[in-house]
Amino acid sequence: MSVDAVLAGLERAEPAALARAISLVENRRDGFEHVLSRLHPRAGRARRIGITGPPGAGKSTLVDGLVRAFRAADLKVAVIAVDPTSPFTGGALLGDRIRMESVSLDPGVFIRSMATRGSLGGLATTTEEVADVLDAYGFDRILVETVGVGQTELDIARTAQTTVLVLVPESGDGIQALKAGVMEIADVYVINKADRPGADRLRQEIEVTLGLRRGHAFRHVPPHHVPRADRRTGGSADGKVGDEPSRSHPPIRPSAGEGGGVGGDWEPPVLLTVASRGEGIEGLVEQLNRHQAYLEASGRLGAWRRQRLAERTRAVVERAVRQWVWDGTPAERLLSERLDAVAAGERSPYDVAAEIVDRVREGGA
Amino acid sequence: MSVDAVLAGLERAEPAALARAISLVENRRDGFEHVLSRLHPRAGRARRIGITGPPGAGKSTLVDGLVRAFRAADLKVAVIAVDPTSPFTGGALLGDRIRMESVSLDPGVFIRSMATRGSLGGLATTTEEVADVLDAYGFDRILVETVGVGQTELDIARTAQTTVLVLVPESGDGIQALKAGVMEIADVYVINKADRPGADRLRQEIEVTLGLRRGHAFRHVPPHHVPRADRRTGGSADGKVGDEPSRSHPPIRPSAGEGGGVGGDWEPPVLLTVASRGEGIEGLVEQLNRHQAYLEASGRLGAWRRQRLAERTRAVVERAVRQWVWDGTPAERLLSERLDAVAAGERSPYDVAAEIVDRVREGGA
Repeated sequence: MSVDAVLAGLERAEPAALARAISLVENRRDGFEHVLSRLHPRAGRARRIGITGPPGAGKSTLVDGLVRAFRAADLKVAVIAVDPTSPFTGGALLGDRIRMESVSLDPGVFIRSMATRGSLGGLATTTEEVADVLDAYGFDRILVETVGVGQTELDIARTAQTTVLVLVPESGDGIQALKAGVMEIADVYVINKADRPGADRLRQEIEVTLGLRRGHAFRHVPPHHVPRADRRTGGSADGKVGDEPSRSHPPIRPSAGEGGGVGGDWEPPVLLTVASRGEGIEGLVEQLNRHQAYLEASGRLGAWRRQRLAERTRAVVERAVRQWVWDGTPAERLLSERLDAVAAGERSPYDVAAEIVDRVREGGA
Repeated sequence: MSVDAVLAGLERAEPAALARAISLVENRRDGFEHVLSRLHPRAGRARRIGITGPPGAGKSTLVDGLVRAFRAADLKVAVIAVDPTSPFTGGALLGDRIRMESVSLDPGVFIRSMATRGSLGGLATTTEEVADVLDAYGFDRILVETVGVGQTELDIARTAQTTVLVLVPESGDGIQALKAGVMEIADVYVINKADRPGADRLRQEIEVTLGLRRGHAFRHVPPHHVPRADRRTGGSADGKVGDEPSRSHPPIRPSAGEGGGVGGDWEPPVLLTVASRGEGIEGLVEQLNRHQAYLEASGRLGAWRRQRLAERTRAVVERAVRQWVWDGTPAERLLSERLDAVAAGERSPYDVAAEIVDRVREGGA
């Protein structure tokens, strides 16, 4: 299928064209930037939701539950599962995905696993570009699931407008270490497998952490200002799945001391779920809707989009320049010629690099 | 202190010059590449040992134990602790480090925390460059401790010639997910807090995972070929701490089917420790020495060094080119001029990026 045929197929919403376009983008084959460029005007309508957390937290089951909830509201859903990959064998762990095959028979659901391939950087960009294809194709919700809590996973989570951090009661042991790194990136906290002991204790720990940080570092809102009613398992009887946020919760809650303007801060709820029994999914969907309403009303959604687009453009420039340096100039040859001297300590990586950069710049005109 | 004064101070092994050189490198201040270039011929003697694993696994306590063991053998030890950092507040979590202040009064011990600063890439390179400074200064062992099991953490771990993955008995739940991503990067496995239930079960799981992978994917060595004697808590009575690997274990064990040459594969041991009581530290040191002996005798150490130096040179080139693109050309201005059109869907990030790259290349001569 040619690039033009892929684009034409996407116009007609053909599933085969979608699969082809994603492969093109994921593998950076010839023409992938042309496809993305052409799709750009149509992307930006889907809501992108990042689901992250440590291994074993039940993210896949939770994603499964969200997919069913969105489908029940007649929303088309795509899932991008970013799996950790061995840098040695190149194999991705796709076991968890098998369970989702039941939902994947539904044409309103699309599931794609992406492997990290041990690539240095670039994965967050590729994930976002695959999401763009799905967005332009017409999916209403795009769930980006990542395993792990490292920097790359956070970078991926940041490509979503709403990020859910999934923990389990046993995560309490690690919460001290997670605190500074991961806690603050989440818009919604989920303690899954909440029927196990320790869920309430962990919830309190998270609330204290969030409350303290807010109280001391940011805005002097004492912890008890964070409404507790939002925080229980599937709590609200009026939880609806769909585009409209539940009106029982004001979509924006301006914080104390900010004068009640629409720019008030979001106070991340901490939810308890038992995803394997579907408990708490409704409440989670409701909080996702609340967060979206908050982003829209506060103007943060627009600012977020501009920032993502600027970052994307930068990433594409750097990708192109990197390719130009290593493929189109004598850089790689120079490097291998100098390596013996570097290994012997006669030359340093820095003066060899300077020599290479000079040659690239000379050849740049 | 000028760059020349720093270099002169390093020659005289002055602690103040060391601290200054590391700050210079960590913050990429003017002259940092000059310092690294000058130190290059003297680096490469220290053994670099990566310690990685999930939060709460007791890595710091284990590192503490290793530091004491190396000091008892009169080896100078540096610790680089890479902490997760909030992308929002920029604060690093240094709590765990406080405990290590006891050892840090010893001038033969140097401890440095590094924050990730939410930087996109580059952290592994900076960590390696700081290790180079410590190496050239004369430390015998450099321990690089990372929290988390994401791609960035793996990249950092890979800058060490020996990588230790620290787990706890409760990690069993996540082992399925860890398997493909993290398991294979480790040269030595440690199940810490092994006095808790589940340690033996986890050890078996790891052994099966390693055995199966080897058996099926790589070399058809059945799991029982992995010697079990090496795997017990601080097991060997002859465990010595120091430069010489214990002779009771052959440093190289050629795998079946490879003809007994020196290029035989390393079979990662799985150790049980209770670092808080110092149990198993001796056995760990012994395995670290065995691994070093294996790397040297098999020629892998030299190959590893060459590969690291080539990667470093590439990273330095890319850093320089990136700086050149964004600081020395109209790229940033062009980007901000075009951003409205991109946000409106009139231009795409891809054609704006192409325009920027063209301008950079034109101006490159």
